[in-house]
Amino acid sequence: MSGGQAGQAGGPERYARASLSFLADPGDPVLGGLLRSARPADLLAVIVSGRRTPGCLLARPPAAAGGEAPAALTPAVIDRAAERWRARLGDLPPQPRLAAWERAGYRLVGPGDAEWPTQLDDLAEARPVVLWLRGAADLRFACLRSVSVVGSRAASAYGTHVGTELAADLAGLGWTVISGGAFGIDACAHRGALAARGGTVAVLASGLTFGYPKGHGELFAAIERTGVMVSECPPERAPTRPGFLVRNRVIAALSRGTVVVEAALRSGAINTARHAGELNRPVMAVPGPVTSEQSAGCHELIRESGATCVTGARDVVELVAPLGDAGPGPSREPAVPAGNLDPVTASVLRAVPRRAGRGPATIATLAGVDLDTALRCLGLLAAAGHVERCEQGWRARSVG
Amino acid sequence: MSGGQAGQAGGPERYARASLSFLADPGDPVLGGLLRSARPADLLAVIVSGRRTPGCLLARPPAAAGGEAPAALTPAVIDRAAERWRARLGDLPPQPRLAAWERAGYRLVGPGDAEWPTQLDDLAEARPVVLWLRGAADLRFACLRSVSVVGSRAASAYGTHVGTELAADLAGLGWTVISGGAFGIDACAHRGALAARGGTVAVLASGLTFGYPKGHGELFAAIERTGVMVSECPPERAPTRPGFLVRNRVIAALSRGTVVVEAALRSGAINTARHAGELNRPVMAVPGPVTSEQSAGCHELIRESGATCVTGARDVVELVAPLGDAGPGPSREPAVPAGNLDPVTASVLRAVPRRAGRGPATIATLAGVDLDTALRCLGLLAAAGHVERCEQGWRARSVG
Repeated sequence: MSGGQAGQAGGPERYARASLSFLADPGDPVLGGLLRSARPADLLAVIVSGRRTPGCLLARPPAAAGGEAPAALTPAVIDRAAERWRARLGDLPPQPRLAAWERAGYRLVGPGDAEWPTQLDDLAEARPVVLWLRGAADLRFACLRSVSVVGSRAASAYGTHVGTELAADLAGLGWTVISGGAFGIDACAHRGALAARGGTVAVLASGLTFGYPKGHGELFAAIERTGVMVSECPPERAPTRPGFLVRNRVIAALSRGTVVVEAALRSGAINTARHAGELNRPVMAVPGPVTSEQSAGCHELIRESGATCVTGARDVVELVAPLGDAGPGPSREPAVPAGNLDPVTASVLRAVPRRAGRGPATIATLAGVDLDTALRCLGLLAAAGHVERCEQGWRARSVG
Repeated sequence: MSGGQAGQAGGPERYARASLSFLADPGDPVLGGLLRSARPADLLAVIVSGRRTPGCLLARPPAAAGGEAPAALTPAVIDRAAERWRARLGDLPPQPRLAAWERAGYRLVGPGDAEWPTQLDDLAEARPVVLWLRGAADLRFACLRSVSVVGSRAASAYGTHVGTELAADLAGLGWTVISGGAFGIDACAHRGALAARGGTVAVLASGLTFGYPKGHGELFAAIERTGVMVSECPPERAPTRPGFLVRNRVIAALSRGTVVVEAALRSGAINTARHAGELNRPVMAVPGPVTSEQSAGCHELIRESGATCVTGARDVVELVAPLGDAGPGPSREPAVPAGNLDPVTASVLRAVPRRAGRGPATIATLAGVDLDTALRCLGLLAAAGHVERCEQGWRARSVG
């Protein structure tokens, strides 16, 4: 869709992935299993033709994908799935509709695209077929140094306070905050990161135009201005009950680790934590009063599931930062070399002084961009390890 | 001292141990090291005579004690210690003074006595020379199923609430609550256990007549009525600053495990937890708001020291109960056989019905004792596994 992007997935493959996101539910294991060996365009063609079973694609896997069909992909399972997908063929949008979404600011990103976060590949069969994105930030770039901060919708005053502070502090340390855009702790996490002018990523269970929950329209608009909104679903799709749990795997997989701020014993946030554990990402939980039901899930994670008890951003960064990178420090190389930056971001980086620090307005003027753009680029540059905050504003991070 | 007690330590040994508790500070490692091979009476005689070094006792260890002198017990170290001890010979009370304390209700208990809790032997050289006790309960009996509940003097309203509830619930499950008698969490622990009519043991850093802190006179009197007060120091000794830390090892060693309810980062309770860990007893901590300094030590214990995050009495009992004894249940044998009970306790046990349950007043009448005695005995019988609470009062626990 977005013409400027490099990547292996060309126009037909992208259109095929977009189409498959209309036909199959997110996380459909049959679709994921077939896509391990079949090309999206071939699979779509078989589904649309209606004459063959998609199972025929397993017999001739493309050389690149390699690998056998998982045992669960029996002909009967595949044909039942194909029946479900074919029932939705009427939902497929015409090509012009996709172009209209593109003009409205949507980006469609799949495996192989420059903006695809490769850590999603850890999900194997459960890897999203495609992601629908909207917002100023580059998703892959934003998630390089990211932590998921999740928790209950029914947050207490304590959880609201702690979640906001934690997210703001993580953002201040140059980490992107990923969450689910829900009421309660999720919203605190996004708002805390935004308040600290840091990066934040919201992964919705609905399509982005649908924008569930509806009450968060302003929050989502704010996230789009500096961060990025993410969904596996086509823009207008309403959320489904199982869709929330399926979405959680993406939150867990995008980040280096997951922090549960507040959660009752049976909470979706516990599910996100479980996904993070299965993906070998650190699972962390914030303790709270033992008299609060909203902290009971956190305490259970710590006691029964080996989650680490964290009390602030420093504890979190200590766990998720790669070795030798316990927070911004002089010894870390930037995650993305300066030569690979886009021209606007590169010009902002050139406007950041090596010593002393400079305010964002001055940096914007020197770089020839507006303030919003400068702030967005500074957030991304911080996430990638090029710049850091200091008392006087921003300065370049000395490397080596 | 108390004539009715069986035990290996006869009159002279007991008097020698009592005397050594006047001469040496609690936990004195040189004294402890010497007593591994020397008899207390021999050691006292050498100190009093002033003509020989106590090191001479190491040359002819009694056959029963066995074992070499620890390397740290060099002649120079022993002689410096002997100098300290001899400087206090003027503090030694005459025999009649000891008899007066006995008449005032003090018991002097040393290794080999029936009331000596053998788990203190895990302290090796740091084992108390002797314990001064006062109170209705039998210390060894009370500590069979016991948990230490400790925490900050500067407890918050949250800690006060949680500590009291935890202790009351532990007492309700038949567990004795051990603590240090201090202001704050310690006091809550004792009061919670007393409120639930359970057993409680206070280990003071001062002598028992001195009774530090002075403001807890009424609490200590209440503990003596049904539980037991414990000190390594002679009755009138004032506490010393290092004495509090040294005392903590006794709290940790007496119980099956230690729970820290609230503690700042540098708190004596953390020291008690460390002792418990070194003694291979479970270390537990109650989480709290991350915004509270009084919970910071608990969170650090959980995160850095592997303490288990516990949110209530059930969590605690799960960790400290021996295998197959997760709380009172039908399959556990009593810790003390009924034949070994003292006559009063045995008569109370005979008055407890096998089924249905009976109120404590009726039990007192049937046993021919007053209500206070009946309640005290019932607490001890519950701790030892003979009886349990039920809706109608108390009933005998079915064994097998």
